[in-house]
Amino acid sequence: MALMNLTIILRLEMDKQKVSFGQISTIISNAGADMFAIDVIKEGPNSTVRDISVKIENEQIQHKLVEAINNLNGVTLKHVSDRTFLVHLGGKVEVTSKLTIDNREELSQVYTPEVARICNAINDDPTLAYNLTIKKNSVAVITDGSAVLGLGNIKPEAALPVMEGKAMLFKQLAGVNAYPICLNTQDTEDIIKIVKAMSPTFGGINLEDISSPRCFEIEERLKQELDIPVFHDDQHGTAIVTLAGLLNALKVTKKSLEACKIVVCGIGAAGIAITKMLLNAGAKNVIGVDKTGALSSKDTYENQTWNWYAKNTNPHNEQGTLSTVMKDADVFIGVSAPNILKVSDIKSMADNPIVFALANPDPEISPELAKPHVGVLATGRSDYPNQVNNVLCFPGIFRGVLDCRATSINEEIKLATAKAIAAVIPEDERNKDYIIPGVFNEKIVPNIREAVVEASYKTGVAKRKEV
Amino acid sequence: MALMNLTIILRLEMDKQKVSFGQISTIISNAGADMFAIDVIKEGPNSTVRDISVKIENEQIQHKLVEAINNLNGVTLKHVSDRTFLVHLGGKVEVTSKLTIDNREELSQVYTPEVARICNAINDDPTLAYNLTIKKNSVAVITDGSAVLGLGNIKPEAALPVMEGKAMLFKQLAGVNAYPICLNTQDTEDIIKIVKAMSPTFGGINLEDISSPRCFEIEERLKQELDIPVFHDDQHGTAIVTLAGLLNALKVTKKSLEACKIVVCGIGAAGIAITKMLLNAGAKNVIGVDKTGALSSKDTYENQTWNWYAKNTNPHNEQGTLSTVMKDADVFIGVSAPNILKVSDIKSMADNPIVFALANPDPEISPELAKPHVGVLATGRSDYPNQVNNVLCFPGIFRGVLDCRATSINEEIKLATAKAIAAVIPEDERNKDYIIPGVFNEKIVPNIREAVVEASYKTGVAKRKEV
Repeated sequence: MALMNLTIILRLEMDKQKVSFGQISTIISNAGADMFAIDVIKEGPNSTVRDISVKIENEQIQHKLVEAINNLNGVTLKHVSDRTFLVHLGGKVEVTSKLTIDNREELSQVYTPEVARICNAINDDPTLAYNLTIKKNSVAVITDGSAVLGLGNIKPEAALPVMEGKAMLFKQLAGVNAYPICLNTQDTEDIIKIVKAMSPTFGGINLEDISSPRCFEIEERLKQELDIPVFHDDQHGTAIVTLAGLLNALKVTKKSLEACKIVVCGIGAAGIAITKMLLNAGAKNVIGVDKTGALSSKDTYENQTWNWYAKNTNPHNEQGTLSTVMKDADVFIGVSAPNILKVSDIKSMADNPIVFALANPDPEISPELAKPHVGVLATGRSDYPNQVNNVLCFPGIFRGVLDCRATSINEEIKLATAKAIAAVIPEDERNKDYIIPGVFNEKIVPNIREAVVEASYKTGVAKRKEV
Repeated sequence: MALMNLTIILRLEMDKQKVSFGQISTIISNAGADMFAIDVIKEGPNSTVRDISVKIENEQIQHKLVEAINNLNGVTLKHVSDRTFLVHLGGKVEVTSKLTIDNREELSQVYTPEVARICNAINDDPTLAYNLTIKKNSVAVITDGSAVLGLGNIKPEAALPVMEGKAMLFKQLAGVNAYPICLNTQDTEDIIKIVKAMSPTFGGINLEDISSPRCFEIEERLKQELDIPVFHDDQHGTAIVTLAGLLNALKVTKKSLEACKIVVCGIGAAGIAITKMLLNAGAKNVIGVDKTGALSSKDTYENQTWNWYAKNTNPHNEQGTLSTVMKDADVFIGVSAPNILKVSDIKSMADNPIVFALANPDPEISPELAKPHVGVLATGRSDYPNQVNNVLCFPGIFRGVLDCRATSINEEIKLATAKAIAAVIPEDERNKDYIIPGVFNEKIVPNIREAVVEASYKTGVAKRKEV
């Protein structure tokens, strides 16, 4: 399937005597590109300059197209702009002032000398920082660049565009001020120390794209040592949205979480977080599978987290390969690698199986292959129904904890968030192709916020007197 | 002199039968407050609710006024809002998105999957971060809260309103995105480590309100170890604006920097930075004075910086008290303590003496006392002519270094900045009461920017190919 997901803009100067627009259009089409807009930039008696916007599938097609145009007599390719690069010029977020300072009096209120009165008030009662500073509504989006998207360990500067994207979504979807901080250290203790030191300015910490197993200790220690919520999105965001989708998938297939046999494939940060949420939500029979096969308490692992995992899952101590344990499973949740799930594995599952093939960009099994044999299918991709996307979770959950000044994001808050996301889809609209709401659904953030605030007060972590 | 610089808003509910507005107005006036606005909030048949805005000199007057109103029959004081507190509610800056994401295609450009192409491009060539991320135009405003305004060592949360104020000014005056980070550590090595780790996200570091002598080592080490400009505003901002004012004051009094005898009083961070700039600008005879008297190379000091200072200043090894060395001085620059300079000290100076009494909020000598005896007087206060104010420097100097990607702010850049600020005042307007431009003068930032860019290329620290 050809996804025309890149947009490029070609600025061409054409000699009207030598070349016709029809020739250009043929070349574009022959290269496998879709032309969708033409803008005249300059029209002269003998020549014309035009911006041609085309959609292409990948960068190879761009090279092919550029070469073909360069070979055409009478055409000069002045410039190729890539729309994705254009929107990134100069960055995607900015820091703006809420007030304009027009005169000396206003200056003296927001800066010296009067600001000293605000400083004194906060120094006497630090909780006033929540009323009188940006702390109230600010989240640090922090990464060390060690596990960015599917790209792995990249330089901190290279991780910044992702963090800026998150900051945009935080603001647009939930009104949260999020500032991206990319650290150029990958030392666990240093990261903990740095985040703790920076915490006075922020009302919450969103950890992002930090590799496993360091992400566990960093998050755990920060949760213990800070009084503001700390949330590693790659673990918990994924787990929450996965559970949200699963809750609806179970309703569609008339299965119960408690009775299901659930295979989780890929026992890294996301797989462990998903499993913990499943257990907290009531699942009884979860089996973790990694490269060495099913994790069982009969075995001992070098990875300490796997020993914990084996001890707390797989009640019947099933052993063997993925294919072996897939037999009679009701649910498959993959956060592992492309194409490791076979059609025969799905066929061996219980009736109406639920398959969440979440590896990105290429799922554990191609949706085309899986579709005929499943009750419900979800992926991490936007070009199929039921996309598991963290964007559904992080803006709303932080909106909620900031609004009630929750000191942490506990299990109850995460479970309430998953249920709130699932509940966005009305019962009469829920079906096998609509178990997860779209990212632009306006009900998501308010639904999550309400659930998070309620769960925060119920569990005693909300420090604001009233919301 | 009574400065009516606080604004409070009293919300009063008045029983129309029992009290007249005239009574209220008399009480306000008797308490020493100036009423300047009345807003009707709710008008009923028997009662009325009004917001009365008044200006007062200090908080004692507020207490007196509130008491007097509470004693008046028929009036209920519903609420007292302080305008300074009101403008700080929820903080003074925010993080905003430069684009609105309206659909799936836009989402995929700024976030996954297409953002990965931007990440890859920067990973291959990290200098692209200057084109494709916020690094290009972002400054971290970093403090440890150890020396905030005149307040001293306060909690990091309590320092945040000042840093937010700076961030506002950075944006409004120079279009720079500045984010405030208040650290809850005061350990020199930790601060250096933290700022270095955070640096990939930022194009510059503005250190703020860090106490001496730690501020020297922190700045020096960061300058050596980072390739982005690092600027401790309390040292260099003050020094630059002081020199700018002095250059104009010398012209007004027809003195030359080289020939002047200059006494600098208060050899802390600001005093040392001012002295270094004076020497770099060509001053030959600078004498530093602190609590123990004039610093001379005949003495040895526990404070190593003072030994350096004594060795590099005071060429005639003058010794003794402030009063002793003030004899025949052309210039006094005080960054020390209130009321330590006597009228007799000024009378002993050379003709047409220049006095910069910069201690804040109370200068080294009251302006009223000094004025009759000086050629030029400058202070740190906004209620007298010639205010030395760092706001004149930091927005423009960072605008310049960000625009040409200077890797540091060196002596030549600082000197060029001082000259650029001085040059904002045209020759025919320059006089003893106008040696320093006002903070809202629109020429300041462009003037500084041009000078900084030129000095950066000249000294080889500008890394951008063209500006």
